[in-house]
Amino acid sequence: MEIFKRRHVPGTAPGTLAATEPPAEPIRARYVEYRLDTLVESDLVDPKEMPEATPELTQWLDVEGHDVGLITALGQRLSIHPLALEDVINVGQRTKSEDFESAIFVVLDHFFIDGDNGAVGKEQISLVVQPDVVLSVRERRSDLFEPIRARLRLGKPRIRGGGTGYLAYALIDTVVDHIFPVLESIGDSMEDIEASLLDRPDPEDVAALHELRSQLLVIRKSVWPLRDMLSGLYRSSEDFFNDETRLYLRDVVDHATMAVDIVETLREMVSSLMDLYLSSVSNRMNEIMKVLTIIATIFIPLSFVAGLYGMNFDPSVSPLNMPELGWYWGYPFALGVMAVVALGLLVFFRRRGWL
Amino acid sequence: MEIFKRRHVPGTAPGTLAATEPPAEPIRARYVEYRLDTLVESDLVDPKEMPEATPELTQWLDVEGHDVGLITALGQRLSIHPLALEDVINVGQRTKSEDFESAIFVVLDHFFIDGDNGAVGKEQISLVVQPDVVLSVRERRSDLFEPIRARLRLGKPRIRGGGTGYLAYALIDTVVDHIFPVLESIGDSMEDIEASLLDRPDPEDVAALHELRSQLLVIRKSVWPLRDMLSGLYRSSEDFFNDETRLYLRDVVDHATMAVDIVETLREMVSSLMDLYLSSVSNRMNEIMKVLTIIATIFIPLSFVAGLYGMNFDPSVSPLNMPELGWYWGYPFALGVMAVVALGLLVFFRRRGWL
Amino acid sequence: MEIFKRRHVPGTAPGTLAATEPPAEPIRARYVEYRLDTLVESDLVDPKEMPEATPELTQWLDVEGHDVGLITALGQRLSIHPLALEDVINVGQRTKSEDFESAIFVVLDHFFIDGDNGAVGKEQISLVVQPDVVLSVRERRSDLFEPIRARLRLGKPRIRGGGTGYLAYALIDTVVDHIFPVLESIGDSMEDIEASLLDRPDPEDVAALHELRSQLLVIRKSVWPLRDMLSGLYRSSEDFFNDETRLYLRDVVDHATMAVDIVETLREMVSSLMDLYLSSVSNRMNEIMKVLTIIATIFIPLSFVAGLYGMNFDPSVSPLNMPELGWYWGYPFALGVMAVVALGLLVFFRRRGWL
Amino acid sequence: MEIFKRRHVPGTAPGTLAATEPPAEPIRARYVEYRLDTLVESDLVDPKEMPEATPELTQWLDVEGHDVGLITALGQRLSIHPLALEDVINVGQRTKSEDFESAIFVVLDHFFIDGDNGAVGKEQISLVVQPDVVLSVRERRSDLFEPIRARLRLGKPRIRGGGTGYLAYALIDTVVDHIFPVLESIGDSMEDIEASLLDRPDPEDVAALHELRSQLLVIRKSVWPLRDMLSGLYRSSEDFFNDETRLYLRDVVDHATMAVDIVETLREMVSSLMDLYLSSVSNRMNEIMKVLTIIATIFIPLSFVAGLYGMNFDPSVSPLNMPELGWYWGYPFALGVMAVVALGLLVFFRRRGWL
Amino acid sequence: MEIFKRRHVPGTAPGTLAATEPPAEPIRARYVEYRLDTLVESDLVDPKEMPEATPELTQWLDVEGHDVGLITALGQRLSIHPLALEDVINVGQRTKSEDFESAIFVVLDHFFIDGDNGAVGKEQISLVVQPDVVLSVRERRSDLFEPIRARLRLGKPRIRGGGTGYLAYALIDTVVDHIFPVLESIGDSMEDIEASLLDRPDPEDVAALHELRSQLLVIRKSVWPLRDMLSGLYRSSEDFFNDETRLYLRDVVDHATMAVDIVETLREMVSSLMDLYLSSVSNRMNEIMKVLTIIATIFIPLSFVAGLYGMNFDPSVSPLNMPELGWYWGYPFALGVMAVVALGLLVFFRRRGWL
Repeated sequence: MEIFKRRHVPGTAPGTLAATEPPAEPIRARYVEYRLDTLVESDLVDPKEMPEATPELTQWLDVEGHDVGLITALGQRLSIHPLALEDVINVGQRTKSEDFESAIFVVLDHFFIDGDNGAVGKEQISLVVQPDVVLSVRERRSDLFEPIRARLRLGKPRIRGGGTGYLAYALIDTVVDHIFPVLESIGDSMEDIEASLLDRPDPEDVAALHELRSQLLVIRKSVWPLRDMLSGLYRSSEDFFNDETRLYLRDVVDHATMAVDIVETLREMVSSLMDLYLSSVSNRMNEIMKVLTIIATIFIPLSFVAGLYGMNFDPSVSPLNMPELGWYWGYPFALGVMAVVALGLLVFFRRRGWL
Repeated sequence: MEIFKRRHVPGTAPGTLAATEPPAEPIRARYVEYRLDTLVESDLVDPKEMPEATPELTQWLDVEGHDVGLITALGQRLSIHPLALEDVINVGQRTKSEDFESAIFVVLDHFFIDGDNGAVGKEQISLVVQPDVVLSVRERRSDLFEPIRARLRLGKPRIRGGGTGYLAYALIDTVVDHIFPVLESIGDSMEDIEASLLDRPDPEDVAALHELRSQLLVIRKSVWPLRDMLSGLYRSSEDFFNDETRLYLRDVVDHATMAVDIVETLREMVSSLMDLYLSSVSNRMNEIMKVLTIIATIFIPLSFVAGLYGMNFDPSVSPLNMPELGWYWGYPFALGVMAVVALGLLVFFRRRGWL
Repeated sequence: MEIFKRRHVPGTAPGTLAATEPPAEPIRARYVEYRLDTLVESDLVDPKEMPEATPELTQWLDVEGHDVGLITALGQRLSIHPLALEDVINVGQRTKSEDFESAIFVVLDHFFIDGDNGAVGKEQISLVVQPDVVLSVRERRSDLFEPIRARLRLGKPRIRGGGTGYLAYALIDTVVDHIFPVLESIGDSMEDIEASLLDRPDPEDVAALHELRSQLLVIRKSVWPLRDMLSGLYRSSEDFFNDETRLYLRDVVDHATMAVDIVETLREMVSSLMDLYLSSVSNRMNEIMKVLTIIATIFIPLSFVAGLYGMNFDPSVSPLNMPELGWYWGYPFALGVMAVVALGLLVFFRRRGWL
Repeated sequence: MEIFKRRHVPGTAPGTLAATEPPAEPIRARYVEYRLDTLVESDLVDPKEMPEATPELTQWLDVEGHDVGLITALGQRLSIHPLALEDVINVGQRTKSEDFESAIFVVLDHFFIDGDNGAVGKEQISLVVQPDVVLSVRERRSDLFEPIRARLRLGKPRIRGGGTGYLAYALIDTVVDHIFPVLESIGDSMEDIEASLLDRPDPEDVAALHELRSQLLVIRKSVWPLRDMLSGLYRSSEDFFNDETRLYLRDVVDHATMAVDIVETLREMVSSLMDLYLSSVSNRMNEIMKVLTIIATIFIPLSFVAGLYGMNFDPSVSPLNMPELGWYWGYPFALGVMAVVALGLLVFFRRRGWL
Repeated sequence: MEIFKRRHVPGTAPGTLAATEPPAEPIRARYVEYRLDTLVESDLVDPKEMPEATPELTQWLDVEGHDVGLITALGQRLSIHPLALEDVINVGQRTKSEDFESAIFVVLDHFFIDGDNGAVGKEQISLVVQPDVVLSVRERRSDLFEPIRARLRLGKPRIRGGGTGYLAYALIDTVVDHIFPVLESIGDSMEDIEASLLDRPDPEDVAALHELRSQLLVIRKSVWPLRDMLSGLYRSSEDFFNDETRLYLRDVVDHATMAVDIVETLREMVSSLMDLYLSSVSNRMNEIMKVLTIIATIFIPLSFVAGLYGMNFDPSVSPLNMPELGWYWGYPFALGVMAVVALGLLVFFRRRGWL
C-alpha cells in the first residue's frame, strides 16, 4: 500500500487541479434523488449532466473514478471550494472533515481485501455534503454503496426523510464498517502464523509478519484521525445533522474507537509474535547445534584414542614403545577405553542436563 | 479469546437485528421486583412475560443467553433504542455507557477463569437502566449475580431502597470485582514461569508468556475504557444516582483504576520475564557450547600429534624420516608432548577465565 | 512484594468488613492529644478506649496492626464512612485521597528496606483526618512516626498550633520522604551491578536486574498517583489546611514529583544495564568462540596432512604410490608443509583482524 | 545533517549579533513590489538599498545568504526586534512563530535532496512579516521561491491582492510542501532496502537504515513543532490574515499533520526493517551453520571408524587383536559400517527436520 | 553524576537546616549594587556583611559554596522562607520556581564539561529574587556569571535599568545556554562512536554508549521541567518582569524547548547506535565463524579419505581388502578423490552464496 499522496509540485497555487493520467476504467456515476414518497435513480453517462436541484428533494451523485475535467465541472456546478476539489483529485489525503461555509468536506479511506492473496487495498472516499446534495467520489469501481441504494429503494422513512445529513452518516458508517473484515483477515493471518510458529518456525513467517505490520501501520495512520474527523463533523454539523442522526454519528465514533483499539491490539500481537518467532528459531537452532556438537564432542576423544594406537612407534626398539599393541587384550582394552570415555561423557552431559 | 465482535454486514441499516445462531443452552431469565418492604422473585420461562411496572417497585430482569426474537420483544416492551438493542445482540462491543433520553445503556466485559487449565474467558454484560427497570443480559449461564439477589433477599435498606441506580451500581461493581481473581491467576502463572526460568528455562515458557501477553492485551482493551465508561455514567446520571450512590460509583472508579494499574504492571513484568528467558536460554546455551568447544579444542592438537606419528615415512631410507619412532623413549616422549599441550591449553583457558 | 490487594469476594456489599486473620503481633496504639500549651501522651491497650474529643484539642491515634473488630469500633466511635473502613482493612489499595463530607481519607504506601538482603518491603498507611482527630493505621510495628511525636513534645508552635491539617501533612511528608532511601538503595545495587557488568558479566546479574525492575514497577505503581492524591488533598482541603500548611503541602508535591522522576530514571537505567549485560555476555562469548575456533581451524589442515602420510598405499607396487615416504627429506618436508600452512593461516587471520 | 544550531557564547547579551564567517557565495537579494495592477521586480546588489515603502504596495525582499552587517542594516531599516535578528543569524533555530507587536517572526526548515547520493540537506528559512513588507532570509542560493514570483507575475488577484498575509502563507506552504519529496525519497530508499533484505541481507543495509533513521529524527524534530507554529500564527494573526487566507493556512496545517504522520510511519517502518534484517541475517547464518555442522557431524563418526582400523595392534600376538583386519570381507565390512552410520545419521537428521 | 539529592532524615521538621560538611573550598561572595548611572562592586569576605538596601539600587549577591551558618544568616537578613533555604542547602533539587509572597525562588542545574575526559558535571544554582535583591547560590567556584558582571560594568541601560527581573532573566539565560556546549560534546562523542562502529566495532563503544545514555538521562531529568519552571515564572512574575523582559523570558523558553528536543533526539540516536553496534558485532562475528567453519568443513571429508586409506586391512588375506593400496595409480587416485570432494564443496558453497 502506498503511504504517499498524489501531490502537486511544491509552490503551485493552492487549488490547482493538475492533469492526472486518465482513469483506467471509464468513469461511472450513479444518481439518486429522493424524498419521503418518491425516488428516481439513473446512471449518468456524463456526471456533468446532473439534474438541477428541486426543492424538498435530496440529491446524491456517486462517482466512481477520477477525471480532472469532470471534477472541475462538478465543482463549478455545485460551487465547491477549490481546496476541497484539490483534495478530491490528489488522493492519499488524511482522514479529515472540513467546514466550508455552505458545505462539509469529508475524506476517509475505504480498506478492502484485494484479490485472493489477502493483500489489503485502500481507496480514498471523498464526500461533499451540502444542504440538498451529497457528492461522493471514489477511486475505483465497486458496489461499496449499493446497500445504501437498496435501503433507499426500500423507502424506510428514517433514511428517506433524513436528508443529506443522514445520507452522509450512512455512507461514512458503511466505509468505517468495512475496516472490520480487513482487520479480521489480518487477525486470521496472525493466527495462522502463530500456529506455524508454535509448530515449526519458518523464515517466510517473518516476511509475513513484516507485511502485516506495514498494513497495520497504514491502516492505523488512516484510522487514528477518524475520531477527530467525526467529532469535527459533530461540532460543525448543527445545520446538517438533527438530534436523531447525531445518536447514529455517536455510534460511528464508537466503531471508530473500536477499530483503533483493535489495530493497536493487533500491533502489539505482531510484536509478541515476532518475539515468539525469534525465540522459537533460536530454540530450534540451539537444539540442533546442541545435538550435533554433542555427537562431535563424544567422537573427538574416541578418535584421539584411535589415532594414538595408529602411531608407528617401533615396539621392537624399546619395550616402552606402545607395548599395548603387543598385548593379548590390547585391542579389547583400547575399545574398552573408548567405551568408558564415551559413557563418561554421556553421563556428564546428562548430569548437566544437556541431553 | 476473541478480539473481534459479532458484526453485521457493512451497509445494513443501524439497529438491524441480524438472526444469530440459536443459543447453545436454553435461555434462562430471573425476575425480581422489590421495594423497601417487599420482594417477589420468579423464574420466567418466557422473558417476554415480564410483569407490568408497578409504581414504587424496582424491577430487575436478568437474562442469560441471546435470542434475537426475545431481545426484540423486550426492546419493544421496554422501548429500548434500536442502537442499544443491536449492541446487546452483537456481543464483543467496547466497554461503554451511553445515554438514551429515558435510559442508560451500559456494556462491559465479565472475565472469568474458564475450566481447570487456567484459560481466561470473557462474556459481554449489557445493562439497560431505566427509572424503574433494570435489564441485564449476559452471554452464558452462571451465578454471577446470585450474590446480589442474596443481598436483596436479606432486605438491607441500602439496596432495597436504592432504586435502579444502586442496583446498576451493584451489578457493575460485581462485574468489575471479578477482574481481580483473573489478574491474580495471571500473576500466579507468571510467578510459576519466573521460578521455572530462574531454575531451568523451557521453550514451553515462551509460549506460556505469549499466551499471558495476549490475555493481558484483551483484558487491557476492555479495562482501559472502564474509567471513561464510569465517568460517563457519573456525568449522565443525575436522574438515576443519588449522592450516596455516587460515593459508591467513585469506589468502582477506584477499582477500575487499580485494575488498569495491575494490568500495566503485569504487562511490564511479562516483558521483563521475556528478557529473563532470553538471557537465561542464551546463558545456558553458551555454557554448553563453551564446555563442548573446549573439549574439542583440547583434543584437536592431541589428535594432530597422534596423526603425526601415524605417518608412514620410511625410517630405513633416511635418518631424518621420523627417527622418533625408533627412539627408546619415543612413545613416552609423544605422550609427554600431548600431556604438555593439553595442560598448557587448560592453563591458558583457566587464565582467560573460560573454564 | 505483592501487587494484589487483600480483596473481598466479588458481589459482597460495599463496606463489608471481612474477618481477616488475626494480626501476627498484638495491636499497639499510641494516643497523643495536644494544643499549643499542653500535650498528653499515652499507650492505649485498647484503642477503643480513645478519650472523648475536647474542644481546642487535637487528637491523634496511631494504630499499628489490623483487626476487624477494632477498626469497626473505631469507625463507629469516629463515624467513619464504611467504604473508607473497608479500604483500611483490605490493604493493597491505590494511593489516593477521598473526601467524605466530614473527613478526608488518605491511603499511601510506606516503603522500607526489609532486613539485610536489601529486599524492599511495603505497608499501607491509612489516614482519616477529621477537624479535631487524626487516625493513622499502619500494617506493622515500627517507629515510623516517632520523629513526629518527638517534634510534638518539643512544642514548636508550628506543629502544636497547626491542628489536624498540619499533623496530616507531617505524617504524609514522613511517609513520602521514606521513599528516597529505598530508591537510593536500589540505585546503589544498580551501581554494583554496573561495576560487575563492566568487569565480568555474571548470570546472577540478570536475575538481580529483573528483581530491581520488579521492585521499581511496584514502587512506580504507588508513586505515580501520589501527585494526583496530593492535588486532590489540595483541592478538597479548604477546611483543613490553612495557607501556611498549603505551602508545605506544595513541598510534598515537589518531593513526590522528584520520586517519580527518579523512579523513571532508574527504570531507564535498568534497561540500559540489561543492554549492557547482553552485549557484554555476547562479547565475552564471541571472544571465547573465536579463539577456540581459530585453534581448531589451524590444526584441521595440519591433521589432514598428517593423515595423508598415514595412508598405506604400497610404494613397492608403483613409483607413484606415495614416493614421499621414501624420500630422504620426506619427513622434514611434511613438517615444513605443515608449518607453512599454519603460518599462512595465522597471517590470514591476523590480516583479517580476527586475532 | 547538523542537529545543533550556530550559538552565541553563553552569557552574552541577548540580541548580540556575533560576527559569522563571511558567506561562501556572494549574497543575492531579489526584490518585488506589487499591488493588484502593478509589479516591479529587481535584483538588489546591496539589499540595504531596499526602496522605501509606498502606500498600497506590498514589498517582498528575498535574501539568499547571511551577513551580520546586512542583517543589522535591514533590522534597523525595518525596525526588527533584536531577538528576531539574532535568530536569523544563528541558524539552526526551532520551527516557531513569534509575535513582536508590529511583526510576526517565523522560522522553519527547508529540506531538500542534496546531490545525487540522496543525502538530505536542511536550511533555515526566516520570515519577518510586517503589515506591508515581507523579508525572507534563506541560507543558500536556490530557486525555492521562484514559483511564487512566477505566480505574482501572472497577476492572479488572489495573490496580488492578498497582501503580506497571503504572501507569507504562500512562502510557508512552499517550504512545507518541499518536505514530501524528501520523505518520498526516504520511502523509496526504504523500499530498496526492503527488497534487498528479503533477497539477500547485506551489512551495508544496516548502515543505510541507521542513516535513514538519523535523517528521520532530524526531520521529525523540525516537523513536529510545525503544527504548533502554524496554530501560533493562526492565533496571533488577526491583523495579517483575512478569513480566506485562514482557510489556506488550515490547509497547510493539514499538510504539516500529514508530514508528521508520514514521518512517524516511516520511523516505525525503519524499526520493522531493522527487525527484518536481524532475523534475515540470523536465518541465513543459521542455515549456513546448520549445513556445515551437519556435514562435519556425519564425517566425524566415519573418521572415527577409519581411525579405529588404522590402529596398529598386532594381530599376530593375539586372535583378539583386530581380527577384522584379517577377515576376507573386512574392508567391505568397514565400509558397510560407515555407510550404515552415515545413512542412520541422515535419517535421524531428516526425521528431526534438520535437513 | 549523582541522581539523588542531599536529603534530610525523613520525619524532621520542614525547613530544618542540617549541618553539612564544611565546603571543600572557602566560600567566596561577589556583591554588586547598581542603578542606571552607578555601579559598586566588591568581594565580600563575609557574605553576612551584605550592605543594607538603598532605594533605587538593585543588589546582587553571588555566593559560591555552601555553609549552613551563612545560609541561615542570609535567610534571616533577607527574610527568606525556611522551605526555600532548605532547598538551597539540600542540593539535588528538581528544576523549579516557587512563589513565596515577597520573593521568587528558582532552582536549576548548571551542566559543564568536567576536566579533559569529557565527563559531564552538574551543580545546583539557587536564585532568590526579591523586589530589590537577587541572591544567587552556586555549589562550586567558577566564572559562570562573570559575563553578566561584565555586561553590568559596560552600563547598557537594558541591564542596568532592568531591575531584579532582568537580572534574574540574565542569570537563568546564562545557565540554560550552558547546556548546549555539553549536549554538543555528547553529540561529538556519539559521532566518534558512530565512526568507530562503522569501521570496526569495539566493546569499549558499548560502555561509552551506556555512559552517554546515563548522562542524557540525568540531563533530561533536569531539562524537562525547565519549561514548566519558566512558565511558572511567567505566571507568577507580574511584579518582577516587565513586558520587555517577558519577551526575553519567552526566548529562554524557546532555548529550553530546543534543549529538550536535542536531548530526546540524542537519546534516540544512542538507541540507534546501540542497534548498529549489535548488528555490526554480529556481522563481524558471523563473518569470522563462516570462514572458519567453511575451512573446517572442507578438510573434514578430506581427512576422512586419508583416514580410510590409513586403515590396516590386510590385502594379502583377501583381494577385497583395500585393493586400492596395491593399485599402480592408487595414491594419485586418492589425491584425485580428495581434490574432487574439495572442489565440489567449494562450488556448492559458492552456489549457495556462502563464500
